[in-house]
Amino acid sequence: MKLRDYGGELALIERIKSKIAANSKDVKVGIGDDCAVLSYSSSEYMLVTTDSIAENEHFSLDYFSPKQVGMKAVEANISDIAAKGGKPLYFIVSLFLPENSTVELVDGIYEGIDFSASKCNAGIIGGNLSKSNQLIISVCAIGTVDKKNLVLRNAAKNGDLVFCTGDFGGSAAGLELLRRNMKGNSIKRHLEPKARLELGQKITKIGVNAMIDASDGLADIRHICNASNAGALIYADKIPISPSTKEDAKALGKDALELALYGGEDYELIFTAPKNSLEKLKKIGANAIGKIKGRKYGIKLFKDGKQADLMNGFDHFKF
Amino acid sequence: MKLRDYGGELALIERIKSKIAANSKDVKVGIGDDCAVLSYSSSEYMLVTTDSIAENEHFSLDYFSPKQVGMKAVEANISDIAAKGGKPLYFIVSLFLPENSTVELVDGIYEGIDFSASKCNAGIIGGNLSKSNQLIISVCAIGTVDKKNLVLRNAAKNGDLVFCTGDFGGSAAGLELLRRNMKGNSIKRHLEPKARLELGQKITKIGVNAMIDASDGLADIRHICNASNAGALIYADKIPISPSTKEDAKALGKDALELALYGGEDYELIFTAPKNSLEKLKKIGANAIGKIKGRKYGIKLFKDGKQADLMNGFDHFKF
Repeated sequence: MKLRDYGGELALIERIKSKIAANSKDVKVGIGDDCAVLSYSSSEYMLVTTDSIAENEHFSLDYFSPKQVGMKAVEANISDIAAKGGKPLYFIVSLFLPENSTVELVDGIYEGIDFSASKCNAGIIGGNLSKSNQLIISVCAIGTVDKKNLVLRNAAKNGDLVFCTGDFGGSAAGLELLRRNMKGNSIKRHLEPKARLELGQKITKIGVNAMIDASDGLADIRHICNASNAGALIYADKIPISPSTKEDAKALGKDALELALYGGEDYELIFTAPKNSLEKLKKIGANAIGKIKGRKYGIKLFKDGKQADLMNGFDHFKF
Repeated sequence: MKLRDYGGELALIERIKSKIAANSKDVKVGIGDDCAVLSYSSSEYMLVTTDSIAENEHFSLDYFSPKQVGMKAVEANISDIAAKGGKPLYFIVSLFLPENSTVELVDGIYEGIDFSASKCNAGIIGGNLSKSNQLIISVCAIGTVDKKNLVLRNAAKNGDLVFCTGDFGGSAAGLELLRRNMKGNSIKRHLEPKARLELGQKITKIGVNAMIDASDGLADIRHICNASNAGALIYADKIPISPSTKEDAKALGKDALELALYGGEDYELIFTAPKNSLEKLKKIGANAIGKIKGRKYGIKLFKDGKQADLMNGFDHFKF
């Protein structure tokens, strides 16, 4: 059966997970969360994650400088570690290079990798170079998290409030501006996304029940709901969208709310916490955008006085 | 400048290494050895490595079953850890899948990954799925090694004997048989290479000065020599080549010694040790094939009463 007829990335991950026998007793969380969580020391867990970006799938050299490509490859991994409340220690880089690649391209990509890794005091410890048909940067990150701060995606509680960091839709608006050769403030949001590393650590210290990083829009809340066997209600008018994103969406003839819900790569955090954390979370800049409900309720959007099903986000993997 | 004009993989790795500022004080060995070596516990180091195989570059689905592809992707990483005397604990898998891929292909690849990971009691802890133009399997392995057993590639001593495990040239002979649609015992050596994990551990317990795994033939001894600032003399008539490899080389009209020196992917170990380890190393099946010399001597092959320069091995990365 062709993958395109199979049902997307999540279904395939579940299938793989169900067939794997190779397990280790030191694995607290394995396949299916943002990071693997492993035994490490008496006070910390080790976090391991990997993320890849491929040319013309996740970036285009028509818009991105090589440095921005390298930064993005690392930020995507930092974002996974941020969603666990951890800190990255090491990056391993696999670079797949087409035949016509230049030394300057490699220099630029590594400049970006080095920039983002240095910013969080992590080391680039090794990697691999391969010939390929397509420019791909695959990064594996290793980090740690204090045991008491670890947060997974599967423990949202009925009655929790739903929060997010920053604002949404900027990266998707920026991508569309670039594609149409237009200008606007959102462009930088697409070319230089920044993972919410420090904010992730602050959030987990306050105490939350579940968290993920948003790679495919606010609709990514479904990953928390699915893993936690829960539903959710999101209030459209609470979703933070910046004035620049609204302006750029208007120029594009796009609905800014659609971009925020289903656009990609904002690398903001989405999390759930009990009501008594509300004031502390507001103080560090988090936005309350909804509530966790029971599974049967489903995942709904409240907009213009009506509730509707929140659709699935964009599946990068869908063929 | 195009990569093809730059001078191969090693030169590019050196260039990258020289430009990277992102370092960590917990890194004992970073870019440039088979594995990164990191602080871990009072008695052990952590080892991290990554290796990738790409369709039509490192394997062909015309010959390989999907299971064999998965096995090979993991064995290449196990081999890096074997060369440090360590044991693998965890594997992280990034799978890049072209548009026409089937669920059965993914099942088969993961069956092989699971088989090789299970064999060494390691866990598959996570990964990533991406669309791409080319089937690529990129694996990152994390392992440990007792501090007292760690061996690097950079400490060969003038006067050391040079050893290798197993025999060489089988995989290269097998590949050529497959390409020409011929039969022979070497074919399995190419399709199902096995890393020398247990032997690597035995060797480091005996005590050696430098070790690598051979991915590009016995000429890979140059990596030990370059890192150790040493030369070497290899005796052609001591190089172990199996009767099957000799027979298949003859049927192919190829020189078996050439295949052993410059053919690829035998995943045997090459190492150097002081003379007083000779008897112990022979007992576990290692072959003494030469001597370490001073840097100025160069890297020579003694054959038919004459010495000649040992050429470089095959550079998979050369464009």
